Amino acid sequence: MNVLFIGDIVGLEGQEYAERVLEEVSRDHQLDLVIANGENAVHGRGLNRKAAERLYDAGVEIITLGNHTWDQHELQDFIDEDARIVRPCNYPPGTPGRGYTVCKVGSTEVLVVNLMGRTFLSQLDCPFRTIDAVLKQHPAIRHIIVDMHAEVTSEKLAMGWYLDGRVSAVFGTHTHVPTADERVLPHGTAYITDVGMVGPRDGILGVDREIVIGRLISQMPARFSVAKGPRQFHAVLCELSDETGRATAIKRVTKYESA
Amino acid sequence: MNVLFIGDIVGLEGQEYAERVLEEVSRDHQLDLVIANGENAVHGRGLNRKAAERLYDAGVEIITLGNHTWDQHELQDFIDEDARIVRPCNYPPGTPGRGYTVCKVGSTEVLVVNLMGRTFLSQLDCPFRTIDAVLKQHPAIRHIIVDMHAEVTSEKLAMGWYLDGRVSAVFGTHTHVPTADERVLPHGTAYITDVGMVGPRDGILGVDREIVIGRLISQMPARFSVAKGPRQFHAVLCELSDETGRATAIKRVTKYESA
Amino acid sequence: MNVLFIGDIVGLEGQEYAERVLEEVSRDHQLDLVIANGENAVHGRGLNRKAAERLYDAGVEIITLGNHTWDQHELQDFIDEDARIVRPCNYPPGTPGRGYTVCKVGSTEVLVVNLMGRTFLSQLDCPFRTIDAVLKQHPAIRHIIVDMHAEVTSEKLAMGWYLDGRVSAVFGTHTHVPTADERVLPHGTAYITDVGMVGPRDGILGVDREIVIGRLISQMPARFSVAKGPRQFHAVLCELSDETGRATAIKRVTKYESA
Amino acid sequence: MNVLFIGDIVGLEGQEYAERVLEEVSRDHQLDLVIANGENAVHGRGLNRKAAERLYDAGVEIITLGNHTWDQHELQDFIDEDARIVRPCNYPPGTPGRGYTVCKVGSTEVLVVNLMGRTFLSQLDCPFRTIDAVLKQHPAIRHIIVDMHAEVTSEKLAMGWYLDGRVSAVFGTHTHVPTADERVLPHGTAYITDVGMVGPRDGILGVDREIVIGRLISQMPARFSVAKGPRQFHAVLCELSDETGRATAIKRVTKYESA
Ligand SMILES: [Fe+2]
Ligand SMILES: [Fe+2]
Ligand SMILES: [Fe+2]
Ligand SMILES: [Fe+2]
Ligand SMILES: [Fe+2]
Ligand SMILES: [Fe+2]
Ligand SMILES: [Fe+2]
Ligand SMILES: [Fe+2]
Repeated sequence: MNVLFIGDIVGLEGQEYAERVLEEVSRDHQLDLVIANGENAVHGRGLNRKAAERLYDAGVEIITLGNHTWDQHELQDFIDEDARIVRPCNYPPGTPGRGYTVCKVGSTEVLVVNLMGRTFLSQLDCPFRTIDAVLKQHPAIRHIIVDMHAEVTSEKLAMGWYLDGRVSAVFGTHTHVPTADERVLPHGTAYITDVGMVGPRDGILGVDREIVIGRLISQMPARFSVAKGPRQFHAVLCELSDETGRATAIKRVTKYESA
Repeated sequence: MNVLFIGDIVGLEGQEYAERVLEEVSRDHQLDLVIANGENAVHGRGLNRKAAERLYDAGVEIITLGNHTWDQHELQDFIDEDARIVRPCNYPPGTPGRGYTVCKVGSTEVLVVNLMGRTFLSQLDCPFRTIDAVLKQHPAIRHIIVDMHAEVTSEKLAMGWYLDGRVSAVFGTHTHVPTADERVLPHGTAYITDVGMVGPRDGILGVDREIVIGRLISQMPARFSVAKGPRQFHAVLCELSDETGRATAIKRVTKYESA
Repeated sequence: MNVLFIGDIVGLEGQEYAERVLEEVSRDHQLDLVIANGENAVHGRGLNRKAAERLYDAGVEIITLGNHTWDQHELQDFIDEDARIVRPCNYPPGTPGRGYTVCKVGSTEVLVVNLMGRTFLSQLDCPFRTIDAVLKQHPAIRHIIVDMHAEVTSEKLAMGWYLDGRVSAVFGTHTHVPTADERVLPHGTAYITDVGMVGPRDGILGVDREIVIGRLISQMPARFSVAKGPRQFHAVLCELSDETGRATAIKRVTKYESA
Repeated sequence: MNVLFIGDIVGLEGQEYAERVLEEVSRDHQLDLVIANGENAVHGRGLNRKAAERLYDAGVEIITLGNHTWDQHELQDFIDEDARIVRPCNYPPGTPGRGYTVCKVGSTEVLVVNLMGRTFLSQLDCPFRTIDAVLKQHPAIRHIIVDMHAEVTSEKLAMGWYLDGRVSAVFGTHTHVPTADERVLPHGTAYITDVGMVGPRDGILGVDREIVIGRLISQMPARFSVAKGPRQFHAVLCELSDETGRATAIKRVTKYESA
């Protein structure tokens, strides 16, 4: 089974480019499951119905989220009804939406879980105990994809090693910069610290760079806006054993739009 | 001019492996200047005389630092005398040591500056104003290497774009995971968000992974120790125009020790 | 000289109550200078022209600010022209407005300085070096009031002790809860860790308490609104020697509106 | 029932002064239960057997803790056996020691719970859900004392209001500066944002002030040591209805050693 996991999609620019690149990647590879992190899909902040629909139309089957989950209030209106959207699972009980979902690839069940790190990022429940509880509830599922949305490398690496041999893959998201450490860990879990993003390449995390630099220097607030210009696409393509669910390969998929 | 910049060297394991790989890389490439981040050289915490000497013997010519600068008290005894050691320049005036140094490659002067980010990391002076002041003091030098030691990708990217066309290279350090975004920015500055590290590969940032995972789960303190096992080496090799000082190429140099 | 310093005024509720209590306090005490922290005057977020005018009309002569300084964009339109408004002095050079101001009480010059702490709060310049520079510029002024806007008690206490004998008073603001540690330090500087706030008493920092509690439990965003109900007024009244500028007494002034 | 709750006891200086003042306070008031926060009892960092025994001998019956709980490794050797020591209850399951304890005052059972805040302080479980679970387990106990160890005023106030009418008292600790907002909330819960500390008065949170100031200015590490000189004692005395367990009065108890 080939799983394509796409990093944080930023703004309309990111939606459009994801759509275009997905078409191309689909021609070159057999993609059995396409997952994308959509926490920045609407002007860099959150997800709404329109953005979700567009991603589905482009071929994305499951959308994961992160610290920007609730930036678009509209999401609360439909997240409960849409089983394709997964927000961090370590939100407290009673939070709208779901923290994991089970989808089918042919006759194989695939569990997709979203977790959020705590260091410098959130005050959610322990992501390690959360994933333990989820895995316990689904002992029969062997194809398990975890989006670990976190700020620091240590917390993501810890989750990767913690789950090695217990899930198919741990993909880090949130920093918007792809890391070059993709590998299959010793017990068969594919891992990367950060998948990267989809959207403007010459911004800063997709945001207009002059605004970000100006804010860091002046320490005064400024409204962020999604950058313009040529775009980048970062994803990972991961091959899972149909039988065991363990990963046999992971590679980065990178596209740059010409200027 | 070829500059090799090596990411955070962790522990004796990192020192040894840096030494070994440097020998090999020197055979394959002409290295005109070798710089390494040494903030984790001594058991993962700081730099002392012995570690510095070993790195010099291995071919490192300039050692940069970061948030672990003062972890080994011994450094304060000799940092003022050793012009090859550079600690973050945005420490307040009066801080021991220097924030930049000028070295010679043939007849060409090269300015090496170390900066530290503030987000989630330090309460130092503004790194943007600091680098502006340094560049103003050295208007004639065109070969300028900046080690931007920072936690978050946004602050490192901001520094890269801020200095594009004004320095030869901005190399990010601190997260110990190499990023896959190395490039020469439009005005000739080589950039990477994080160079990575040198040391145990199967630890977490070079630290024993069971300790790190245990600490995250239990939230109880535990003494970190450098991990065992096969090692990784992450550096970037950067080609600078002798005439203009601008970068013409940057590529990652990665070595993995076989298990 | 009697100086009344009023803690963070929150919302219209706070403005109104400050006005009413000031009338009363003015009857009971001779107030030679009235200063108020106005960073939360407009719906809990920032200061605008209307709020500033109302505070002036109520008898406030100098308004200090803090981390909410720029929450009302309108302030940038007039802060440069209004010498009665002081924003944190350790913002970078070039920031709109001023970080200190000199006013006259009779024939005596009084220097009012606003500083912001960095721990868990800001990435501004070092407040200690900043105040040193300000004091150096005004060697002849002996009546000096410092509003130290900071999150943690350690940073405020450090500033108090650092300036003991060099300024008339260091008043902490920001936490909205008055502390019971007001005193004149050994060398004549009046000190309190936090003056408190003016506004709804049964909210949380002046904000509707159900919203704050709900947010802490759900970890989902919710728009804050200023609480309703009876109000509290917290200020300190400080007596300064006309001759030396040193403090001879400090006491808390507290009023609670009956329900 | 009269409960005396003593703020964070810092170092041997704090232990000694607590002992001395307790003798005096016991003469003036009938104390039915004495609780003290002991997280800083040993050189400002943690609790060991000797310090605990000394506090018991001085009349303390229950010791609560906080973020410094594990600073003395020795505590792990005996915390399980000593039912008088309570560490934050929102540590994960499996943590040594207990997060609450039930003691007897005459024939009345009193539940003492320790909670830790998360904002800028810890990555523990949600303190609100934690206290809900504890209260559910002990529906028959009406005398309930909560030590809410937290950095920010908002989180402490939120806990106070959240528990109003459900527990006897919520006492804040950790900032080492007493607040002047003690009151009985509308439904009968005594509340104070911070009780304060016991130990050197002219230090910063009990620590030598030159070291703290030097560290803030230089941003270089320095070993903290407990300050010398005259001491302060901060506690609250709280009167609880024997029948309902609700608070009928709270007042601060403050003593300053003469220089
Ligand atoms: Fe994110
Ligand atoms: Fe994102
Ligand atoms: Fe570092
Ligand atoms: Fe490092
Ligand atoms: Fe504030
Ligand atoms: Fe405020
Ligand atoms: Fe404490
Ligand atoms: Fe504490």
